[in-house]
Amino acid sequence: MNLIVLKKNDFIDNENVILKERRFKHLTRVNKVKKNQELSCGLLNGKIGSGKITTISDNFIGMRVSLENDPPVPLPLTLVLALPRPKMLKRIIENITSLGVKKIYLINSWRVEKSYWQSPLLNEDQLEQYIILGLEQSCDTVLPKIYQKRFFTPFVKDELPLISKDSICITAHPKALKKCPSNVKERTTLVIGPEGGLIDKEVETLENIGFSSFHIGQRILKVETAVTYLLARLFT
Amino acid sequence: MNLIVLKKNDFIDNENVILKERRFKHLTRVNKVKKNQELSCGLLNGKIGSGKITTISDNFIGMRVSLENDPPVPLPLTLVLALPRPKMLKRIIENITSLGVKKIYLINSWRVEKSYWQSPLLNEDQLEQYIILGLEQSCDTVLPKIYQKRFFTPFVKDELPLISKDSICITAHPKALKKCPSNVKERTTLVIGPEGGLIDKEVETLENIGFSSFHIGQRILKVETAVTYLLARLFT
Repeated sequence: MNLIVLKKNDFIDNENVILKERRFKHLTRVNKVKKNQELSCGLLNGKIGSGKITTISDNFIGMRVSLENDPPVPLPLTLVLALPRPKMLKRIIENITSLGVKKIYLINSWRVEKSYWQSPLLNEDQLEQYIILGLEQSCDTVLPKIYQKRFFTPFVKDELPLISKDSICITAHPKALKKCPSNVKERTTLVIGPEGGLIDKEVETLENIGFSSFHIGQRILKVETAVTYLLARLFT
Repeated sequence: MNLIVLKKNDFIDNENVILKERRFKHLTRVNKVKKNQELSCGLLNGKIGSGKITTISDNFIGMRVSLENDPPVPLPLTLVLALPRPKMLKRIIENITSLGVKKIYLINSWRVEKSYWQSPLLNEDQLEQYIILGLEQSCDTVLPKIYQKRFFTPFVKDELPLISKDSICITAHPKALKKCPSNVKERTTLVIGPEGGLIDKEVETLENIGFSSFHIGQRILKVETAVTYLLARLFT
């Protein structure tokens, strides 16, 4: 936990917070914090700063906080990702949050297993757990927005043109002929398919609304590796 | 499994192989292969090509193979990595293998938990399992070499200068002042610390033998994310 993400209901007055349960356990057992220690913290969707531990009891920590700085700059990216299997989705959500992605569309595609959409992980509360881990890791406070779109064609044809308006539009596709650009400065919309890739017809549907297809080299990567690889490459 | 990695003892004559157990199960249950289907395959540490399925029995697959092409070009990188916790090590080995790293030093450092060195995962046979998964993923055949070094200072002072000779020498370090270079073409030796980072004295020891310290931005990433991020950035 590199930063403690505070929620409004953690505050007992203007500058004092009480941390219980998961954060209490993590701070006392893993970080082994002491009274008067200063820790980085930030208000969810707000400023970051530091907090000084005023109390450590048997089941809570009291801290006086002062939040003055802006959170880190987000990536200028909208990520459109074919829904991965639940176990991988957890890690991907945590990772892309830590990398600064703020707008995520989880979409269906031909090779997405239908059962993945039944996963309890897709409940907002569950997703938020992994988002918070990503924010704590990367010292950020701004919650990404995650949208779920269960129908590929209507999403791509009716919604994606507006979502991706005035941005560079990229489909990551191992069979593409050109290598993905690097060090892009502009706002970008990036589509990444499932394990096994998008099918040709899906790539075509995306090309028809202005998405160019690019590969990232001869090697085929797992989706979770490819996501990090692409973000590092696009925004060096 | 994007490529079947064959070992010499899979061959029953010059061009026919028998696949059993894990690969048999994966190919029949996950890939749902059929007789006469063509599949990508390659000989461990050798050429890649294709194989045609000649037999599917209850517990093995027979395939006639023809291997003519070179495996993909490796990354010009030596990776020196503070030993991660076992669960993460599995994924990192698989990932960096899939990214084309061929020389890996797992080292000790102040913040590496001593118990990690007791993990059965560090046995050569165990590590090879995850390496093979990485090769199967990325259509490669060349086994990376993994060395284990349990003493930081003697390794850095006595061995690393020779290992890193004539290469760009980089320590990834969140507290460094300069941002990590991108699109490096030369041979590179990259040191990545454990969760929580290298301690200042370790960074200094590395600086003393010519390693420059670089950060990768304001966000602190998990080691497994940072590894992929750095490789994508260095070799765009």
